[in-house]
Amino acid sequence: MQFNKITQRDIKVLQSIVATERISIGESDLNLHSKDQSQHPAISPEAVIWPKNIKEISDILSYANSHLIPVTCWGGGSSLEGNPIPVCHGLVIDLSYMNKILEIRQDDFQADVEPGVIYQDLNHKLRHKGLFFPPDPGARATIGGMIANNASGTRTIRYGSTRSNILRLSVVLANGSLLETGCRSSKTSSGYDLINLFVGSEGTLGVVARATVRLTGLSEMLSAAIVTFPGLKEAGQAVFEIIRSGLDPASLEILAPECISLFNKEKNFKLEVLPTLFMEFHGPSQQYLHDTMIINREICNGFGCRDFRIGIERKERDELLMARYELSEMIRRTHPGRSHMVIDVAVPVSAYPAIISLARAEVKKTAIPGYVFGHAGDGNLHLVFMGKNGDKKEWARIGQINDKIVEKAISLGGTATGEHGVGIGKRKFMAMEHGGSLQWMKSIKQLFDPNEILNPGKIFLP
Amino acid sequence: MQFNKITQRDIKVLQSIVATERISIGESDLNLHSKDQSQHPAISPEAVIWPKNIKEISDILSYANSHLIPVTCWGGGSSLEGNPIPVCHGLVIDLSYMNKILEIRQDDFQADVEPGVIYQDLNHKLRHKGLFFPPDPGARATIGGMIANNASGTRTIRYGSTRSNILRLSVVLANGSLLETGCRSSKTSSGYDLINLFVGSEGTLGVVARATVRLTGLSEMLSAAIVTFPGLKEAGQAVFEIIRSGLDPASLEILAPECISLFNKEKNFKLEVLPTLFMEFHGPSQQYLHDTMIINREICNGFGCRDFRIGIERKERDELLMARYELSEMIRRTHPGRSHMVIDVAVPVSAYPAIISLARAEVKKTAIPGYVFGHAGDGNLHLVFMGKNGDKKEWARIGQINDKIVEKAISLGGTATGEHGVGIGKRKFMAMEHGGSLQWMKSIKQLFDPNEILNPGKIFLP
Repeated sequence: MQFNKITQRDIKVLQSIVATERISIGESDLNLHSKDQSQHPAISPEAVIWPKNIKEISDILSYANSHLIPVTCWGGGSSLEGNPIPVCHGLVIDLSYMNKILEIRQDDFQADVEPGVIYQDLNHKLRHKGLFFPPDPGARATIGGMIANNASGTRTIRYGSTRSNILRLSVVLANGSLLETGCRSSKTSSGYDLINLFVGSEGTLGVVARATVRLTGLSEMLSAAIVTFPGLKEAGQAVFEIIRSGLDPASLEILAPECISLFNKEKNFKLEVLPTLFMEFHGPSQQYLHDTMIINREICNGFGCRDFRIGIERKERDELLMARYELSEMIRRTHPGRSHMVIDVAVPVSAYPAIISLARAEVKKTAIPGYVFGHAGDGNLHLVFMGKNGDKKEWARIGQINDKIVEKAISLGGTATGEHGVGIGKRKFMAMEHGGSLQWMKSIKQLFDPNEILNPGKIFLP
Repeated sequence: MQFNKITQRDIKVLQSIVATERISIGESDLNLHSKDQSQHPAISPEAVIWPKNIKEISDILSYANSHLIPVTCWGGGSSLEGNPIPVCHGLVIDLSYMNKILEIRQDDFQADVEPGVIYQDLNHKLRHKGLFFPPDPGARATIGGMIANNASGTRTIRYGSTRSNILRLSVVLANGSLLETGCRSSKTSSGYDLINLFVGSEGTLGVVARATVRLTGLSEMLSAAIVTFPGLKEAGQAVFEIIRSGLDPASLEILAPECISLFNKEKNFKLEVLPTLFMEFHGPSQQYLHDTMIINREICNGFGCRDFRIGIERKERDELLMARYELSEMIRRTHPGRSHMVIDVAVPVSAYPAIISLARAEVKKTAIPGYVFGHAGDGNLHLVFMGKNGDKKEWARIGQINDKIVEKAISLGGTATGEHGVGIGKRKFMAMEHGGSLQWMKSIKQLFDPNEILNPGKIFLP
C-alpha cells in the first residue's frame, strides 16, 4: 500500500477535529511515540494526536482513510514486540486522554471503560468493592492495549487472559464508522463473535474506543508458596498434578535457578538455587487455604520437592508476591549498560520441560546474561536476555536464539507468542504457525480495513 | 440466493464421493433429519449423506458449492432453536459416522475429536484419567453441535462455555478447502482469533471436521446444596454474594416454586415450595468442601434462607444432582399430549430478578403449564412451556410470551439467547440485539460462504 505523508493541510484539518493543542509535530512528542519497551528500533510518527471521545476518533480515522494516512494507536507504550511502533510513520493516536472509568456496575461484575484506562487504576478504584479486573500483564498497561494484544500474566491460569474478560466493545473502524458488539450478560450464543476478532488484533482491524470488562470477586484470602525441586522434570510433574487435582491455583510460575540466585541476592530469601515453583492461591477463608496447602504439599512431596515454604502471614506473603512481580525490573537493574529482550512462547504443558530445557541450554551456551521463567501452568515461557547496548554481535546471537526457541515452540504444537503479540518481531513466524489460515486472516483485514491504514506493518509481513 | 434441487445426477456424483450406502433419499432418513428437539416445524432435506472423513466432507462441499445445493450439518439433533432444520431443503450432512476420539493427550489436558463424538462418551472414556470436557448442555449433544451453538450448561459458571474449551479447529469451508486454526498451547496472542468466529456460527461459515478440546481435572470431591429462600430477591442477593466471595461454585442454579413442587412429587424431596438455589461445589478434599459449605451457609443465612440442605454423602448428593439434570425430562413426562418450548435468554446478573419475575408473572397469567429455572450464576433464564399439541391458540400465546421475554432481556442489556443459539426462532431479534454490527456478521458470512450454501436461513432473516 502506498501511503501519503502528512501535510500542513492535513494538520490543519486534524486540528479542526480535535483542538490545536491536542495534535503535535514536536520532536519530543514524536520521540515519545516512536518506541515501546521492546528492543525494536525507534521509528517516529509524523504527528501525534490525542482524541478525547469516540466522535473525534471517528473523524480522525475517516480523514486518514480517505487520505491514505497510516494510523497507529498508542496505549501505555509498554508492549514488548514493537506492537505500537509506527513503522510506516503517519499518525499516532494516543488514547491517554480517554482514560475515564465510565461506570462500575458492581452487581453485574462489570465496568465500562475508555481504552486509556490503566488496569491498575481500575483495580485501585475497585478495591473497596471486593472486585477486580483480573488480567495482569505487569507493566502499567492500558486496557485498550491489553485488548489489542490479548494481554495476560501470572493470574491467567485461574482468571483467563484479556480475551476471557471482555463482554462488549465499541470499535471505530478504518472508515470512521462505529461498530458496537457484545452484550452485558456473561454468556451469549447470539450470532458471530466479533469481540474476539478485535481482541488480539493489535489495532489492525479497528480502534477500541470503549469496552465493557468483566470483573471478578476479590478473594477474601490469599496464600503463596515457594517450592524448590531437584530438577525441571519433577517441577513439571508437580505442575501437572496440581492442575489435575482441582486445586485451582491463582498463579503457578516457574523460575529457573538463575532467577532464584537473583532473589536470594536482592531479597535475602536463602532459597536453594534450584528449579522453583511459585504459587498463589485465592480462597474465601484461612481454613480453606490451609487445607489447600496441605494437599499442595502432599503433591509436591510426591515429586521430591526440597523446600516448601508457605507464606500465609501477610508480610511474608506480600514479600513473595512482590519478588515475583519485580523480577523483570530486578533483572534490568542488575545489568547496567544492557537492554532486555523478552522471548515469549507457549507450548502444550507436556512440552514445557522440553522448551524450558532448550532455553536454559541456550543461556548456558552464551555469556550473555539470560533468565528463564514463565507461567508454567499455561505452558508460557519467557527468557529475558540482557544484551549489551550497541553490541551488534550479541544482539544477533540473541536474535538467533529467539528464532530457535520460537521455531521449537511451534514444532511442539505451541505458538510464537503466548502473550506479547506478533507486533514486528513475530511476523516472520506467522506462516509457519498458521499455514493456510494466515490467508484468511489477511482476508479479514482486507474486509475491515481495505486501505490498510490501521497499524500497517504489524502481524503480517509486508 | 437461488438454490438448485438435488437431481439424480447429483446423487450419483455424491455416491461416488462417499459410498452408495452412505447417502439416502429414503423417507425415514429424511424425516429423521427434518426436526430437532425444538417446537419448530419439520422440513425435510432432499438427501442425507454420512461422510467418514475430512476428504469426503471437502468433496461434498466442493460439489454442493459449485452446484448451488444448500447444505446443513447434523450432529445429535438435540438443539432447541431449529438450528439444524434444513429450511431450504437440499443436503443434510450427518456427522455421526465421524465419531472417533482421535487422541487423548492427558498430560496436556487435551483431546482431539471428530465432530460426531457425543460429549458424554468422551467424558466416559476420560473418567479413569481424572479429566473431563466440562461443557454440559445436558442432552446427548455431539461436540460438533456444541461448537456450532457455543453450547453451555449448569457448570459453565465455573468451567466456561464451549467457546472457552476449544483450542484448535479443522474446518471445511464452503468451497471445500480446509482451514486449520489455533494451537495446542493453552494460551496464545498470535494473529486473529478465527476459532471464536466458527464457534457459535451454527454451521453457517464452515463444517467443523476436527477439534482439539481443552480438558479439566476432575475434582476429587463434589458436594451439593439445595437452599430455599422466602423470595426471588433474597435468592438473587445470595447468588451475587456467593460469586463475589470467591467460593467458585461449579453450578449455581435457580428453580422457581413450580419446579420444586415437581421435585417433591417425583423425588419425594419434601422441600418448601419456594424459590430455591441448587449449588454444586468441586474441590480437592472433603475438608475443603466442608469449609466451603460453612461459608456458603453463612452467606445464605445472611439473606434469610429457610432451608439449607447439603448433600456431602454420595447417595444424597447424587440424588440432588440427578434431580436437576432430569428436570426437563421430568417436565415433559408430567404433561402427556403436550410439547415443550424452551425460552432461553440471558441478562446481566443484577437484572436476573427482573427477568425471572417477568417470566413467573407470565406463567401465572396463563393456564399453559410453565416452569421457570435457569443458570442463575450466568444470568441465564429458561422458561419451559408445555403447549397442547395442535392447539394453535396456545402456541401463539407461547410465541407472544417468548417475544416479550426476549425483548425485555435485550432491553436489559442481555441477549436473545444464552446458550441455544439463534437458529430459526431468534433471527427476528438479531437486528434489535446487534444493531449495525449485524451487517458486519453478514459481511463475514459473505467472505467465507459467498454462495450462501451453508445452513441457509439461519441466524439471519432471509
